[in-house]
Amino acid sequence: MLNKTKIKYIQSLSHKKQRDQDSVFVAEGPKIIKELLDEKNIKLKELFATKEFLNLNPGIVSQQAFAITEISEDELRKISFLSTPKQVLGIFQKPAFPEFSRPEGITIVLETIQDPGNMGTIIRCSDWFGIKNIICSKDSVDIFNPKVVQSTMGSIGRVQVIYCDPVELLNNFSNIPVLAATLKGRPVSSIKTPSNCFLIIGNESKGISKPLLEKVNTEITIPGRGKAESLNAGVATGIILSWLTNEPI
Amino acid sequence: MLNKTKIKYIQSLSHKKQRDQDSVFVAEGPKIIKELLDEKNIKLKELFATKEFLNLNPGIVSQQAFAITEISEDELRKISFLSTPKQVLGIFQKPAFPEFSRPEGITIVLETIQDPGNMGTIIRCSDWFGIKNIICSKDSVDIFNPKVVQSTMGSIGRVQVIYCDPVELLNNFSNIPVLAATLKGRPVSSIKTPSNCFLIIGNESKGISKPLLEKVNTEITIPGRGKAESLNAGVATGIILSWLTNEPI
Repeated sequence: MLNKTKIKYIQSLSHKKQRDQDSVFVAEGPKIIKELLDEKNIKLKELFATKEFLNLNPGIVSQQAFAITEISEDELRKISFLSTPKQVLGIFQKPAFPEFSRPEGITIVLETIQDPGNMGTIIRCSDWFGIKNIICSKDSVDIFNPKVVQSTMGSIGRVQVIYCDPVELLNNFSNIPVLAATLKGRPVSSIKTPSNCFLIIGNESKGISKPLLEKVNTEITIPGRGKAESLNAGVATGIILSWLTNEPI
Repeated sequence: MLNKTKIKYIQSLSHKKQRDQDSVFVAEGPKIIKELLDEKNIKLKELFATKEFLNLNPGIVSQQAFAITEISEDELRKISFLSTPKQVLGIFQKPAFPEFSRPEGITIVLETIQDPGNMGTIIRCSDWFGIKNIICSKDSVDIFNPKVVQSTMGSIGRVQVIYCDPVELLNNFSNIPVLAATLKGRPVSSIKTPSNCFLIIGNESKGISKPLLEKVNTEITIPGRGKAESLNAGVATGIILSWLTNEPI
């Protein structure tokens, strides 16, 4: 059973302010809940699950590390952020990462990425290609926004995302090469990847701001042959990372 | 002004059956409407626009090729498929393409791609890399689904998507090489692209079905270094196309 205070509290976690204050986020559905439970860097605090989920997952029920509340389908609908709620909702502690001291390998720099789907794709791609750190301008979408969480899956516990002013941060690492995805750079296939570097991905419609563009050493382009105006920021990140992380055969 | 019959008709276009019957689809918002108007292969039939849109776009109003109805914000909310309606909604004739006779360059084959966002990304990427034809299993999402249309933009008029049984189709072209994205193939960077070929992209969680996999000559993998379980089908398609269409420098 859920009381009104608890329902209101969970609903309030749709707001960044409340998530930041309590350093928590919400994830939903059996697949992502199980993936996050397997992720060492993420701690489940509270689970709200239907009878169906609890019956199907006796292993989870037997764990004592977090509180489990059995709820009805009706109650789930009240607390869920999904249009089609899926059996279970968890409140997780935000992952903890070592402090970012210096870029190792490729560090991604995102400017004004506001679409949750794009942000989710970028985090998942980064995890796939072994990227550890993403620097993110403060006007980008919060990665603990429920829509981002649902699309990143367990990657949210493995890739560190740091919100700060990218220009200020780059000022501190003036000896590290800065690459950027633009529409008029060198073909991505011709780039020799520096051992440590930054890779800037800008806003899909506005591109990269002037102050940030001034920091760039090498502009990279994905050569196209058709008429499409642009690739979305998630796909562009995936393509560039696949080339930059490729080891000669 | 909109009468009830018209409102009901536009709402009915959220259903594939009605769209197929009339060979039309709906697109919304100034950006996509203008892009589609510029696309020769697509014909606008009817436009429903707020005063704001009409005032800002006198060039569109002066065109006589389609019917324009000025509507209120309230009326727009009734017919819009978006959670935040954007000034204008158009009913378009589906694009016409020459009949598919044989694969030229890379022909993409999609099996059971059900997520509208993934489908939109795949069509847009295909357009970017100059792909002309996509073969699609019948259990994939309809490309004229409003969510797909919104994410493909003008690419929907440039890339032909053919719904059929992929296995039957491949049977007719047994001399054309078939590549497929799987988790245990050769690294994408090692593939020499055949001048004409099929490229199969399967369902994200289920992969490629056995009957279709039997048609495959070369399995391709995107090497990863992290722990992410998979890349989404849209990003995987973008990455593979960027390698397969790359011309040596």
